[in-house]
Amino acid sequence: MREVAIIGVGMNKWGELWYKSLRDIFTESALLAIDDAGVDHIDSMYVGCMSSGLFVGQEHLSSLLADYLGVCPIPSARIESACASGGLALRIGFLDVASGASDIVLVGGVEKMTDVPVEGATFALSTAADQEYEVYSGITFPGLYAMMAQAHMHKYGTTREQLAQVAVKNHHNGSMNPLAQFPQKVTVENVINSVMIADPLRILDCSPITDGAAAVILCPMDIAKKICKKPLVKITGSGNATDTIALHSREDITEIRSTKVAAEKAYKMADKKPEDIDLAEVHDCFTIAEICVIEALGFVEKGKGGKATEGGLTALDGKIPVNTSGGLKSKGHPVGATGIAQVCEIVKQLRGEANDRQVKNAKVGLTQNMGGSGGSSVVHIMEVV
Amino acid sequence: MREVAIIGVGMNKWGELWYKSLRDIFTESALLAIDDAGVDHIDSMYVGCMSSGLFVGQEHLSSLLADYLGVCPIPSARIESACASGGLALRIGFLDVASGASDIVLVGGVEKMTDVPVEGATFALSTAADQEYEVYSGITFPGLYAMMAQAHMHKYGTTREQLAQVAVKNHHNGSMNPLAQFPQKVTVENVINSVMIADPLRILDCSPITDGAAAVILCPMDIAKKICKKPLVKITGSGNATDTIALHSREDITEIRSTKVAAEKAYKMADKKPEDIDLAEVHDCFTIAEICVIEALGFVEKGKGGKATEGGLTALDGKIPVNTSGGLKSKGHPVGATGIAQVCEIVKQLRGEANDRQVKNAKVGLTQNMGGSGGSSVVHIMEVV
Repeated sequence: MREVAIIGVGMNKWGELWYKSLRDIFTESALLAIDDAGVDHIDSMYVGCMSSGLFVGQEHLSSLLADYLGVCPIPSARIESACASGGLALRIGFLDVASGASDIVLVGGVEKMTDVPVEGATFALSTAADQEYEVYSGITFPGLYAMMAQAHMHKYGTTREQLAQVAVKNHHNGSMNPLAQFPQKVTVENVINSVMIADPLRILDCSPITDGAAAVILCPMDIAKKICKKPLVKITGSGNATDTIALHSREDITEIRSTKVAAEKAYKMADKKPEDIDLAEVHDCFTIAEICVIEALGFVEKGKGGKATEGGLTALDGKIPVNTSGGLKSKGHPVGATGIAQVCEIVKQLRGEANDRQVKNAKVGLTQNMGGSGGSSVVHIMEVV
Repeated sequence: MREVAIIGVGMNKWGELWYKSLRDIFTESALLAIDDAGVDHIDSMYVGCMSSGLFVGQEHLSSLLADYLGVCPIPSARIESACASGGLALRIGFLDVASGASDIVLVGGVEKMTDVPVEGATFALSTAADQEYEVYSGITFPGLYAMMAQAHMHKYGTTREQLAQVAVKNHHNGSMNPLAQFPQKVTVENVINSVMIADPLRILDCSPITDGAAAVILCPMDIAKKICKKPLVKITGSGNATDTIALHSREDITEIRSTKVAAEKAYKMADKKPEDIDLAEVHDCFTIAEICVIEALGFVEKGKGGKATEGGLTALDGKIPVNTSGGLKSKGHPVGATGIAQVCEIVKQLRGEANDRQVKNAKVGLTQNMGGSGGSSVVHIMEVV
């Protein structure tokens, strides 16, 4: 397998972009990434998108987005794994370069969620869960994550305030990210007094509905060394794993097994351990998710995620800063784009381009992106070389 | 890149499978492929599916299908490129094995189209076209292909009867395929007197709406040589290309440029020419499509596709038998599964397992799968070694 570098990143301002269509927001980000990489062509492209069919009545993004980016007839594919679509697109773009089939590869993610003609965004998102056994019974994602939160609180004594601390931290970080959808800071009191969604989760425990895109450019290390004028970032680990789609089929609903397995693979490939990671972007679709995920990644012991967050382990100045971009919570969560935006943040941090939210001496970064209630996870490790 | 073999194929009976859900039909085919390969595990999986979101309200097939196949926590991805989703999934599975990342890879395709809760099958299929510039103007796929047919008839003198010959040939072949949805034979008179859909295309010029799945097992050649007890089939060429999503944006609507470019790449990689191909499975979503495709593949000169079909070039006993399985026309067209079913047919032919429809001395086969009105195409070349 060839070694693979990330030589360009691009992301636009996220939010409710009523005046831009899916093709517009994707193309903007893709052009930013191409500019950032300084390349004059791309050889193939992969786009993560969860449900452009249900959100905007458009499938066949492989053709549409290659067309609007002006790069036909290059090979192009859309990759889907619910909210892990972006991370999985990165993995497949990585395999394309690693295999030797393509040199300069664009990997993007996109979702337009605020202008839904059919059935609404909650229905579209619910299709990441098991339709036949979960959704037809009436549950949607806030309810599924609320059950995980209740179980975590019961089993490990995680508190309502510890959940809130995730939101407080991520909005604090997001306040320094000009591309974030909700850059305002929040307090623990704001979170625990906000509108109830699914007990114990309140509106400020939930990531928002967002329009947005992000893109990166990959190439083999030997080409990157010749053309890249910025600090070189290499993908050293890639792991993807699945779990049962339905939450009720799992032995322990507080453990995100797909993340645990994907991380083990990525750590092994990169020859790294959790303690070697300088910073991470993780999938905080709900506050409880970040707590379960930092446990599954091995940053803290099982059950200690809430306490560790409260203690500042994952704060911007903590031992392992998590979601320096603001995370899904503050930056926004256009589901297919999220996994790629995580990579954009890590690359900017590793290059020392993160401005006010820069982590000192960031050399090794990790991204963790997951689908549904953890039915799929993708973990990547990136290092500046 | 490692050499890649296909060591197992599986497909179930296609049709209106009201009594089986998407997960059932996929799992059936996947188990058939696993049995055929004789493997006791798989390392990763890829599933082509165009729009499970719009057809059955279920995304996140990566997790769902790994779960129901009982193979979690292996890596899994769903690949989408409209009706070329299956072919593209094969290409990405091929890259996974070629890169060295995985050894035993399952590649499947699935679509359940006859039991649609939201908006109907015509709407779901229309999302493969440009929603903003084609579909909102009222056109759907029969109309787009009818325009291609009208232009082809006008420019090259292709006749109504020549179009019908495609259906007659493919239903003849399909009558010998026990898995085909519509195995009945049809005559030229049946076709040209059937119900008008979009002038000149009548109902018997159109492929049907189908529930179905298909699956194949890939592995590196060195492993295949040790474990495969059947004639060894190797993937020697793989090409993927895109074109404008909207038909009106193309210079010549009778030419399927994405197929032409994808085929050039596959021929180059396999070091083969059109005349080296012994048989092919191509994307006859409408009769005119097969005519344009055999031209784009270089089997006949531009404009001569209709005449060549009439002359028997592509018949079962012709120089290059095309769609020996019955094609999309007779076998059915569960859109995401079609590209994989094409591969199943070629592998069976190359192994000499095609019974009454066996092509003599079949050594080199080609599959061509396309999305929309040709916005994307995938071509593979397979050889028995």
